[in-house]
Amino acid sequence: MNIITISREFGSGGRELGKRLAGLLGFAYYDREILTTLAHNAALDETYVETALETGWLARIPLTFGASFTYLPSTPHDPAHLLREEHKLLRTLAQRGDCVIIGRNADLILQSMEPFKIFVYADLEAKLARCRAHAAKEEPVDDATLKRKIRQLDKQRANHHALLSAHAWGDKAGYHLCVNTTGRPIKTLSDQVAHYARAWFAARG
Amino acid sequence: MNIITISREFGSGGRELGKRLAGLLGFAYYDREILTTLAHNAALDETYVETALETGWLARIPLTFGASFTYLPSTPHDPAHLLREEHKLLRTLAQRGDCVIIGRNADLILQSMEPFKIFVYADLEAKLARCRAHAAKEEPVDDATLKRKIRQLDKQRANHHALLSAHAWGDKAGYHLCVNTTGRPIKTLSDQVAHYARAWFAARG
Repeated sequence: MNIITISREFGSGGRELGKRLAGLLGFAYYDREILTTLAHNAALDETYVETALETGWLARIPLTFGASFTYLPSTPHDPAHLLREEHKLLRTLAQRGDCVIIGRNADLILQSMEPFKIFVYADLEAKLARCRAHAAKEEPVDDATLKRKIRQLDKQRANHHALLSAHAWGDKAGYHLCVNTTGRPIKTLSDQVAHYARAWFAARG
Repeated sequence: MNIITISREFGSGGRELGKRLAGLLGFAYYDREILTTLAHNAALDETYVETALETGWLARIPLTFGASFTYLPSTPHDPAHLLREEHKLLRTLAQRGDCVIIGRNADLILQSMEPFKIFVYADLEAKLARCRAHAAKEEPVDDATLKRKIRQLDKQRANHHALLSAHAWGDKAGYHLCVNTTGRPIKTLSDQVAHYARAWFAARG
């Protein structure tokens, strides 16, 4: 199975890159779908699931987290339960066939399936510009708010990651390829990375 | 002019990757040649030039280093003089035509020529294995010595870099692409990176 995981800084264009990559390679693409499925399976609201997975369980995480969940209470709306379900779902999706997975610590959770691990990043100015362009479609947001959001979301991602890995989130040592999107069209970069990924999987045989 | 700069951790295979890349792209390749030329021009021993550039001038560097050298004494064997000559030589070489340059902070010195900046790295174990294989051809070295050497050389590179840049050496923010060579044949990786670089320069037009 050829699996590509995309970890990315907020506003770097990593999601778009991943989506294009999946298109170019003919791989399945999993992103928001993961939350939708989890919410559906647990008969819960998707926003609740998202929040629960992002922050809800951090407060009550035991120190032995990495080793076992089993003694934790297990109700469908329990964040720890949702997290277990998420891990299960990721494995199921990955076993189904070649795919690109955005975020969700898939690089760590699917480690045994040897994913091709990409980290996408950019300069703060470039990320702000991308966020601005994106926000403009909905409602304009000032730069200070955007900067705070970028910092906050990346911090959240880093915190999650820290619970599962010895490498810090975004530390290049934890990835096979790190792609700086500053000043480059994502479309062109996607072509380049798609070729790189093809050769990567071909060399693995 | 299409310029590729390769910064690399010691033992990561960055030099080999750069050399292959130059071959695949039909670019000139500059590495050791830079020291040889500097030594020749100054009628100095190459090893002296190397040491002078690597450590000799650090002790006497003024705080205003980035801004001006002009009030420093200027004799051919003066490390600061050699450093100026190195920067000049790098610019001359880069203006001559498409090229791959290994190390020497070319990523920073040639910044205005917009080089494609690559950082090559690997896990410590992979670097040790590469160093071991390389050392075996000459004389066997124990792991503790190799580890010390890796740490020492990378530290030296980081120190140099710190004098010229706001980004730390090896911080992915300072590069366009970071390539992890752990467990991958350099030959295959070179093909992948060559394709990436071609598309990079083509997109720039």
